[in-house]
Amino acid sequence: MKPLKNDTYLRALMRQPTDYTPVWMMRQAGRYLPEYKATRAQAGDFMSLCRNAELACEVTLQPLRRFPLDAAILFSDILTIPDAMGLGLYFETGEGPRFERPVTCAADVQRIGIPDPEGELGYVMNAVRTIRRELQGEVPLIGFSGSPWTLATYMVEGGSSKAFTKIKKMMYAEPQTLHLLLDKLADSVTSYLNAQVAAGAQSLMIFDTWGGVLTPRDYNEFSLQYMAKIVDGLTRESDGRRVPVTLFTKNGGQWLEAIAATGCDAVGLDWTINIADAKRRVGDKVALQGNMDPSMLYASPERIEQEVASILEGFGHGPGHVFNLGHGIHLDVEPEHAGAFIESVHRLSRSYHAG
Amino acid sequence: MKPLKNDTYLRALMRQPTDYTPVWMMRQAGRYLPEYKATRAQAGDFMSLCRNAELACEVTLQPLRRFPLDAAILFSDILTIPDAMGLGLYFETGEGPRFERPVTCAADVQRIGIPDPEGELGYVMNAVRTIRRELQGEVPLIGFSGSPWTLATYMVEGGSSKAFTKIKKMMYAEPQTLHLLLDKLADSVTSYLNAQVAAGAQSLMIFDTWGGVLTPRDYNEFSLQYMAKIVDGLTRESDGRRVPVTLFTKNGGQWLEAIAATGCDAVGLDWTINIADAKRRVGDKVALQGNMDPSMLYASPERIEQEVASILEGFGHGPGHVFNLGHGIHLDVEPEHAGAFIESVHRLSRSYHAG
Repeated sequence: MKPLKNDTYLRALMRQPTDYTPVWMMRQAGRYLPEYKATRAQAGDFMSLCRNAELACEVTLQPLRRFPLDAAILFSDILTIPDAMGLGLYFETGEGPRFERPVTCAADVQRIGIPDPEGELGYVMNAVRTIRRELQGEVPLIGFSGSPWTLATYMVEGGSSKAFTKIKKMMYAEPQTLHLLLDKLADSVTSYLNAQVAAGAQSLMIFDTWGGVLTPRDYNEFSLQYMAKIVDGLTRESDGRRVPVTLFTKNGGQWLEAIAATGCDAVGLDWTINIADAKRRVGDKVALQGNMDPSMLYASPERIEQEVASILEGFGHGPGHVFNLGHGIHLDVEPEHAGAFIESVHRLSRSYHAG
Repeated sequence: MKPLKNDTYLRALMRQPTDYTPVWMMRQAGRYLPEYKATRAQAGDFMSLCRNAELACEVTLQPLRRFPLDAAILFSDILTIPDAMGLGLYFETGEGPRFERPVTCAADVQRIGIPDPEGELGYVMNAVRTIRRELQGEVPLIGFSGSPWTLATYMVEGGSSKAFTKIKKMMYAEPQTLHLLLDKLADSVTSYLNAQVAAGAQSLMIFDTWGGVLTPRDYNEFSLQYMAKIVDGLTRESDGRRVPVTLFTKNGGQWLEAIAATGCDAVGLDWTINIADAKRRVGDKVALQGNMDPSMLYASPERIEQEVASILEGFGHGPGHVFNLGHGIHLDVEPEHAGAFIESVHRLSRSYHAG
């Protein structure tokens, strides 16, 4: 392995001094890039792209060829684990992900096994190994997974949901069934992420896209508890270097203290919180990642720069900030606007790290 | 007008002593009731039901015949104002509300006038008058409107939205156009709500369903500012009695202090906040309405009772709490579970008001 040339992102996650604020974008490899669409067309459908290590590597690297991003993130889907559990993931055009065999009862949950990361999920590890090799040490590679709660919502609802009716019925009527499912998912995510580290991932992120639909008590019991269990079980060092872990709960701004107390290294923020408030609340415990509204990339480069300046000023001086969007980049953003965003972060952040 | 027999709800909103905690349910007149479905079938489509004062009154009263609710709420749609502005509201089966002529540019906004509450919106005032008369003073009647921001999201997106792409493009690229629209909406909502009070509404509520998709700064600038302007312009007394105003921003738990500072009487809470924390933060300024997860009504009556007990204990002793769900009741809830919920609130809350 080549030595890492740019470790700004890893240092920021450890709250160590850096020359500038590192930046990457959630879903940076994606449909807003014409070259992504071309590769995806070549692969056929979305999961075929994920299953082909060379093509998954290609789309992972595409945004890095355009922009001076400070990290690469594995190109994959958050639903690989439920798919490997036998639920039959497929994509309906315009409908998002669906499962052929959703989880409906205790018997369904009991039948579920822990997928072998080098077995059914071997294609993900092949992608990690390929990407890590092809990165040639330019920037660190982020591995990731969905959170147990978020995975469970898709598994029980059978796909995307608005009201989360089915999983909440299970949560309130049969909490022990849901806990068994979440426990199996936590074990699966732990082994999946550890395998990603063994395959070359240098940082890890857990996406809890749907934790924000819960009451504070249910969030602790059905989402955060399982993320904390995963954090406890993760390999935190590789090649003699810390492998930092970032937890991100969308709409989790009310629960930052609890998230920061899990032992994670960083907390991802969506745009509904002021980053200055977040730093005041948990900045002595964890690094912060975020948090520009992805819709800001529709605005002019001048307006984007203003917003970047405002968020940098909110976080203030010193280390511990990884700039990012508060959620994934929208598919119809102009690539030039993403470029202006990244350039603004790099240029404007230097003064916050001087001295 | 008959004198009001049960003013528990109004007293709670004023943080005056009551014998028990009053309760009503957002969307209490709705599809979970078979008698509602029958009346709706009689009316034809949804807007025909809203436009027919006798039938709108009938569905408003239906839940009160089943349950000892402490308030009635006008049966209407939140999109009556944009419809009266000429956008052409219609409902696509399974798709939610749509507009034939969405707002796309500054010229569209400039063309928009303030609807006359006794003109284009006269059918709403007729419904208010009919309901108030038929209620015969049993419980107070709540009038309502969507917030300017929430109405604007539907007007600019052309219907429901997930990412709010179009309105955020307008917000960041042409903020002055959006401000003009929001200003017209604030004037329209003010005159609409004041007309509802003149027609017999005894309490008012503003629903900001989509304020929670904004950054804190944008929430203040594009949503809260206009709700505050409305609160300032409302008739606050009728029949010698205060007409209390409740503001509800879904996913607004992070901004309670700012909401409470608008001059409203009460703040509605969704279920993502612990009501004890909310009371600690703003309980000296406003009453609180909420906040059981509507999905809890899928659980057994025993589990529902537990949850009611937990929320009552969270709010603690003393006045200032109106029990409610954290959002509208789901359409597939068993009416008996709603009944168990209401009965539990009444029975278990008495001890918190003793002495």
